[in-house]
Amino acid sequence: MSYVAPVKDMLFAIEHLAGIAQVAQLPGFEEAGLDTAQAVLDECAKFTEGVVAPLNVEGDRNPSSFKDGRVTTTPGFKDAFRQYAEGGWQGLQHPVDFGGQGLPKTIGAACSEMLNSANMSFALCPLLTDGAIEALLTAGSDELKATYLEKLVTGEWTGTMNLTEPQAGSDLALVRTKAEPQGDGSYKVFGTKIFITYGEHDMAANIVHLVLARVAGAPEGVKGISLFVVPKFLVNADGSLGERNDVHCVSIEHKLGIKASPTAVLQFGDHGGAVGYLVGEENRGLEYMFIMMNAARYAVGLQGIAVSERAYQKAVQYARDRVQSRPVDGSLPGSAPIIHHPDVRRMLMTMRAVTEGCRAMAATAAAAYDASHHHADADVRQANAAFYEFMVPLVKGYSTEMSLEVTSLGVQVHGGMGFIEETGAAQHYRDAKILTIYEGTTAIQANDLVGRKTARDGGRTARAIAAQIEKTEAELAASGTADAQAVARRLKTAREAFLQVVDFVVAHAKTDPNAVFAGSVPYLMLAGNLMAGWQLGRALLAAQALLPQGRDEAFLRAKIATARFYADHLLVRTGAQRDAIVEGAASVTALALEAF
Amino acid sequence: MSYVAPVKDMLFAIEHLAGIAQVAQLPGFEEAGLDTAQAVLDECAKFTEGVVAPLNVEGDRNPSSFKDGRVTTTPGFKDAFRQYAEGGWQGLQHPVDFGGQGLPKTIGAACSEMLNSANMSFALCPLLTDGAIEALLTAGSDELKATYLEKLVTGEWTGTMNLTEPQAGSDLALVRTKAEPQGDGSYKVFGTKIFITYGEHDMAANIVHLVLARVAGAPEGVKGISLFVVPKFLVNADGSLGERNDVHCVSIEHKLGIKASPTAVLQFGDHGGAVGYLVGEENRGLEYMFIMMNAARYAVGLQGIAVSERAYQKAVQYARDRVQSRPVDGSLPGSAPIIHHPDVRRMLMTMRAVTEGCRAMAATAAAAYDASHHHADADVRQANAAFYEFMVPLVKGYSTEMSLEVTSLGVQVHGGMGFIEETGAAQHYRDAKILTIYEGTTAIQANDLVGRKTARDGGRTARAIAAQIEKTEAELAASGTADAQAVARRLKTAREAFLQVVDFVVAHAKTDPNAVFAGSVPYLMLAGNLMAGWQLGRALLAAQALLPQGRDEAFLRAKIATARFYADHLLVRTGAQRDAIVEGAASVTALALEAF
Repeated sequence: MSYVAPVKDMLFAIEHLAGIAQVAQLPGFEEAGLDTAQAVLDECAKFTEGVVAPLNVEGDRNPSSFKDGRVTTTPGFKDAFRQYAEGGWQGLQHPVDFGGQGLPKTIGAACSEMLNSANMSFALCPLLTDGAIEALLTAGSDELKATYLEKLVTGEWTGTMNLTEPQAGSDLALVRTKAEPQGDGSYKVFGTKIFITYGEHDMAANIVHLVLARVAGAPEGVKGISLFVVPKFLVNADGSLGERNDVHCVSIEHKLGIKASPTAVLQFGDHGGAVGYLVGEENRGLEYMFIMMNAARYAVGLQGIAVSERAYQKAVQYARDRVQSRPVDGSLPGSAPIIHHPDVRRMLMTMRAVTEGCRAMAATAAAAYDASHHHADADVRQANAAFYEFMVPLVKGYSTEMSLEVTSLGVQVHGGMGFIEETGAAQHYRDAKILTIYEGTTAIQANDLVGRKTARDGGRTARAIAAQIEKTEAELAASGTADAQAVARRLKTAREAFLQVVDFVVAHAKTDPNAVFAGSVPYLMLAGNLMAGWQLGRALLAAQALLPQGRDEAFLRAKIATARFYADHLLVRTGAQRDAIVEGAASVTALALEAF
Repeated sequence: MSYVAPVKDMLFAIEHLAGIAQVAQLPGFEEAGLDTAQAVLDECAKFTEGVVAPLNVEGDRNPSSFKDGRVTTTPGFKDAFRQYAEGGWQGLQHPVDFGGQGLPKTIGAACSEMLNSANMSFALCPLLTDGAIEALLTAGSDELKATYLEKLVTGEWTGTMNLTEPQAGSDLALVRTKAEPQGDGSYKVFGTKIFITYGEHDMAANIVHLVLARVAGAPEGVKGISLFVVPKFLVNADGSLGERNDVHCVSIEHKLGIKASPTAVLQFGDHGGAVGYLVGEENRGLEYMFIMMNAARYAVGLQGIAVSERAYQKAVQYARDRVQSRPVDGSLPGSAPIIHHPDVRRMLMTMRAVTEGCRAMAATAAAAYDASHHHADADVRQANAAFYEFMVPLVKGYSTEMSLEVTSLGVQVHGGMGFIEETGAAQHYRDAKILTIYEGTTAIQANDLVGRKTARDGGRTARAIAAQIEKTEAELAASGTADAQAVARRLKTAREAFLQVVDFVVAHAKTDPNAVFAGSVPYLMLAGNLMAGWQLGRALLAAQALLPQGRDEAFLRAKIATARFYADHLLVRTGAQRDAIVEGAASVTALALEAF
């Protein structure tokens, strides 16, 4: 099997780090306890391992193709997507009212990771549909909801996000697509959108494009952008498909990775205007889009974890099989599987620790999301929202940046074979590279972390999290084992580095923005590293507490060893980041522009 | 122009760091002063920029292809190689006696970097030919030299290195290719070799394969391996080409990068036996091969620098052109070229500082190589040899590992466009990935650093280099500028970390090899980082000393700013490496094998 879902590790995080028992006490999630999580994850594992994962290599070799305005996806994708929809997977986290299953993100996130490990290109279609659903739920009129939501939630139709234009990437103020009111409540949309994931494909009967555009006369910049629904096929009053709308795919991109996922250039309105329907109010499009984007950013973070997991599994398999050289300690008489060599172990442990650490971070963030939406107490909702929102740029930025390192190590473990495309390790390396770019580059995530998540509240949320970490340190130190104490020590150093950086950011965000933003990405990496290490510290505590029960000893000892490795080899990186941020800002911008 | 050779920076390193004036005092290099360097580099820049660089993208899109035993290279390669040979570039560093130009490595290395920046796939052919020349010069009989050397040195024929077999990669003890003596002094060779770069192609009339094989009855393991010359076409007594030899290409690989460079599977002896000629003595093949490999390893290090330079140039160009978002400090009223954004500057500075640092390290290593071969005094030769040999795994390992980071940043600077293959940034990312693998993976370089270069002499060479670094620190501190003092402080911390690691390696190499080899790659990265930072510290001193002359102020200030950035942002990483090596060894191998 090319992928085995790490159900046990996911459930450990869901139970002991995210706290599914608490999630199941939230109004609306009464059925969503550990048993449900186990049942859903088992079913998802079966589907992703058996149906979706085998199509991953095929998607790379035989990508989506474009001809005469139509996109044909990789053979097998259409059928797999039908099974995905029929299995109810698209609706997992969406409201029961619209045909969903209404499960918490705490469970849904694990399923999303599996789908992405199995096949990142395939998983992008549901990921974008989730975004469209989110936007309509948040800001759509009852009519829009009635027309589109159930079809999207059941996977009968799919959704897209249309933000980017050739001149407007990270900078959406530059969006030029126009929308003209038609007097009947509808608009006609004109413009070109690029980088539209699954902007055209053959897996569903209709595609619901969510499109950023300017209404004539709107203010300049981001305050004049509105959000529209532009369906590929217009929808009749009875819900059946009507006329083809004036939105057409004119080409798809030739990319480094995720080749099976069609990345479309869409032309709106070349034949009279694409019919569009306003979502919410005019000029508030960016606000709504940010809701989608925040969901999507978290989901892209999961993609980073997912591709890391898949690369790790592949590397372990190769390291067990490939026989080469005698162990340096002479423990075996002849050539041994390379997993016996310390440097191979170091690479595999790095891959493993990063993957588990990021998964643990994402799991706790998901639980906070659930509480922020469902808890009865407004203060608790608010506190959880602050925690979740602080974590989103870290889940997105850190997990994806680290996936570059992990997938690179994955190739490296394979040696020369890793460079041969047929081996498959290189696909993960190529696929991962988009993750630090789309849904906001790492720098854009870091801007969010610095601005909205740190400076805006004067560092309050950041310091509150640090205080929680300090408690974990105390528990680790008190537990008395050498591993726990070592992890406590590393956490302490990393937390102190984090706090110094938070102080620096808060102190200089207004007075010296260049200095703060020169270190924004290192700050993101430091914070993400700390959060992942913290959660592994909590995992170590949980594992230690469970050991006396005498079950799963090997699994629990592995948890402890992985947390210790993370502390010794990953958390130690935070010192350099602190130095670079706090003491090295000036040298980032010291070189004269002409000298580059 | 897609590539502009950084002649000025190269000459700065050659003059002020490598000390070309001293090189020109070595017997045999009297003509090889700065003027010669300038003339050769200018000429090489013209050739690589104008002829070779334009073929780089073409080679990626239209790679070498295989049909019926023949390999057809990318259109344009054959003609470019003819010009390369006619220009005398293949013989640049090779003896005048065999048609070469006899120039020092100090000059040759810069030319090699240019060729690789221009087109890494193309440059691999000369790189392997250099290795074959080196082996024949070192161990070939007069007859072999007479038959093959001039043809190789003039670029009329090309050379290959045949080490790897399916079961024998890093572990050459497992080589199975057989050689049977024929009684006439020749041998017949039988076996399969894989991953043979330019093992078959259409750019030269003959290909001279250097092949590792076992003579019947030889001892097992590495002590029973011999080296053979196996030409594609046998050579008649008059030097003309004779019969086709029984070595045939049966396929070429489909690779992640360097696609224009054909990577061949070669079948020896399927039709009666490939005629081979012993190089040197039987069973000493590995020893000779290591001579080639050391040259090749240094050259691969240059490839890392070369691809970094090219990626940097491309990223700078994009960052100047792409307009997106207003500067965070409000210094411009509207959207600005992204080079104005601090995080883009951070990425570009990282790319630049790493590239210049590695180039400076390689330049000083080259000068030591020249002195180690040409100095009149045996002690000086010896000291320079020790320095050079210590540097080889660092030049190879550090420059190539860092090229992964640099080329990844190169894609990142391009944002979404970086992921589109037509942009070209992704090619560098894909091409670079082979560099940490071939000619010995980074772990193999690290084994060399730990074993032969550090433990064997009890850390003497390492500590001697550290003492030199300490002198540089003192000079920096004494120079009195803030930049110099900051660099001195970072160098001191990094050097102390290095010395602690050296002590750890020396103390535990025999008693606890697992602990030492668990940290071997981090040790290599720490040492490489320190050496590059050291040379940039020397560059800063040189630049400060030249400033009062009033020439080239912008260039000299850029040198200072780059050194400072390197110290603030790269040298600071060494602390984490020290901690991981000295305190984190146990956690590398703590996880039970079954738990992966």
